[in-house]
Amino acid sequence: MNVTVRGRRRPFRTVSFDAARNEVVLIDQRCLPHEFKLVRTRDFRETAEAIRDMTVRGAGAIGATAAFGLAQGARAFCKGGLAKFEAHVERVFERLKGARPTAVDPVNAMLEVRARLGAGTTVAGRQARALDAAMAFADEDVSHCEAIGRHGAKLVRAGAHVLTHCNAGWLAFVDIGSATAPLYAAQELGRKFHVFCAETRPRSQGATLTAWELSQQGISHEIIADNAAGHLMQQGEVDLVLVGSDRTLGRTGEVANKIGTYTKAVLAHRHGIPFYVCIPLSTIDWNLRRGRDIPIEERSGDEVLGAWGTVQGPKMSARAYLRVANPGSRARNPGFDVTPPELITGIVTPAGIFRPSELWRHRAQLGGPR
Amino acid sequence: MNVTVRGRRRPFRTVSFDAARNEVVLIDQRCLPHEFKLVRTRDFRETAEAIRDMTVRGAGAIGATAAFGLAQGARAFCKGGLAKFEAHVERVFERLKGARPTAVDPVNAMLEVRARLGAGTTVAGRQARALDAAMAFADEDVSHCEAIGRHGAKLVRAGAHVLTHCNAGWLAFVDIGSATAPLYAAQELGRKFHVFCAETRPRSQGATLTAWELSQQGISHEIIADNAAGHLMQQGEVDLVLVGSDRTLGRTGEVANKIGTYTKAVLAHRHGIPFYVCIPLSTIDWNLRRGRDIPIEERSGDEVLGAWGTVQGPKMSARAYLRVANPGSRARNPGFDVTPPELITGIVTPAGIFRPSELWRHRAQLGGPR
Repeated sequence: MNVTVRGRRRPFRTVSFDAARNEVVLIDQRCLPHEFKLVRTRDFRETAEAIRDMTVRGAGAIGATAAFGLAQGARAFCKGGLAKFEAHVERVFERLKGARPTAVDPVNAMLEVRARLGAGTTVAGRQARALDAAMAFADEDVSHCEAIGRHGAKLVRAGAHVLTHCNAGWLAFVDIGSATAPLYAAQELGRKFHVFCAETRPRSQGATLTAWELSQQGISHEIIADNAAGHLMQQGEVDLVLVGSDRTLGRTGEVANKIGTYTKAVLAHRHGIPFYVCIPLSTIDWNLRRGRDIPIEERSGDEVLGAWGTVQGPKMSARAYLRVANPGSRARNPGFDVTPPELITGIVTPAGIFRPSELWRHRAQLGGPR
Repeated sequence: MNVTVRGRRRPFRTVSFDAARNEVVLIDQRCLPHEFKLVRTRDFRETAEAIRDMTVRGAGAIGATAAFGLAQGARAFCKGGLAKFEAHVERVFERLKGARPTAVDPVNAMLEVRARLGAGTTVAGRQARALDAAMAFADEDVSHCEAIGRHGAKLVRAGAHVLTHCNAGWLAFVDIGSATAPLYAAQELGRKFHVFCAETRPRSQGATLTAWELSQQGISHEIIADNAAGHLMQQGEVDLVLVGSDRTLGRTGEVANKIGTYTKAVLAHRHGIPFYVCIPLSTIDWNLRRGRDIPIEERSGDEVLGAWGTVQGPKMSARAYLRVANPGSRARNPGFDVTPPELITGIVTPAGIFRPSELWRHRAQLGGPR
């Protein structure tokens, strides 16, 4: 998407690759929304570190970063034959995998790259194939998001007020995003609409990342406290809810996503407001049979007990963590919740829009099992 | 309630009066939860300023502060007869009224004091009556809250997990509080239970004031992001919801309270969890006929775009405002919402527990019109 840097509008991807310098180029998401900065990783170890330290986050984005990291590592190999090359690639794979041990996207992405490079018969051939495979992986991530946008654009009518939760935007993917894809596609069609970004405590990705994205694209928006969503719906001020998903169960249509998604779904259901979940096919889990078996990560209480942002001083502003809560108190901090299918109007995928209960029937079309 | 100051447990009221020195004594709520500090106002002008600058907040607490402020002003009068005294009291009244122009509690409290002092036939007699009336007003606030606790205690069973929203605690009243009254009463009865304090963005009164109160009383509690309430209910972890109210319509049973209350009520209803609103009689509005006619204050966007707390430096911690959100974005910030009666299990008043639809029928008992 386009970003205005020093007064000039330029296109950027969240993750890209500089083949000439063999460097992965990342938007540093730790600095957003307060500063736009690119980071270049010079070898696969630095790439692994960028995944680990959250320079890059979001399922699609870390998948592509790992794919590029594997190609980067493979291409840096210069001394030895195929056997040594294979052992080297294995080390790169493990290093990148270990950067975010619970995430599945980096592993799936690298498996795809490794499968394709194996077809080469020389080290140079395999190196070239690794690069092609990683590039193709990233481009496919983008085209999937574009397809979500094509299908979802019709949901975003001119004059609509759309509520979003968290950031399933282009910063979470290589480009375009999932929940934001219908918005960007509707904007391309010349439609004007308004977005309410729920701030999404405790990590505030709605107030920071989604609001930053919409600002950059010139889309009318306002940030709201999560607490205000119900009131705005009650006042008839919300026409549509769009969210992403970390894991959607192909067998049941249940959707695991950032904590607070379930609350928005319950509210939308009460007010008869369409509630759509936008997902790439890679987030569909075809195995798990019950949403309650999805492990819900319990995150650090510090996220709830305070906030990150910038403190404005007389001459400078500095990044800081602020303690908000009573110093003697502890917090519970479940990171995700599960929304049942009866609260979901539709699931917007690159292959079209489906009711949650229809995913299993259409599994062939959606990359599922036979 | 009891507060531990320098290792010693001592009883405090949110608002009290030192008759010997003619000073109002307030817990400085701007410093909580990070520091416990008492403030003494030396004349009615300082008392008005303490109301204006939020040293004291909460309906019951500012009512009592204004009542004491009026008595304080009346008692400071020393030169002149009854006519001059009356003119002086009028000036004190207007000054205190102007400190928080939209609040009704200070005005109602002062009208009560002024009506009673009028029965005195000398300046000294009226001054004594003013003090008695203000003391009686504060004591009545406490006894109303105690009565809420007596009726509400049976809702808080041993082992219960109770969700609260915002702070309708003793800091919002002279003592005890409304939504916290059943908790403190159940604790007195020796019951053990656990409280989830919803942080209550954007001003975080749950994470700061309610969590501080419960810490001081040694009640087991955890702070949660507002977003986590739905998930915890879904997991069967919430048995009861207790909230306060800024205004309850006696004719319809609709409840206006801090933004986010409606969301918690919708979630509780879906999960069949009892949802109770605890109120003193003074917050019942017997005139208004429709909840949608309650004016909803739109507050400053800065509350949503950032947070207040303390920044921990290497040698000190300092109070600060932190900007969290994207710098280019604006916020919507409705301060209150309205919960319809069908989502409310019961209204806990000093006169007993009523269904919202029963308030009007029992209006005689509840201080309503004929």
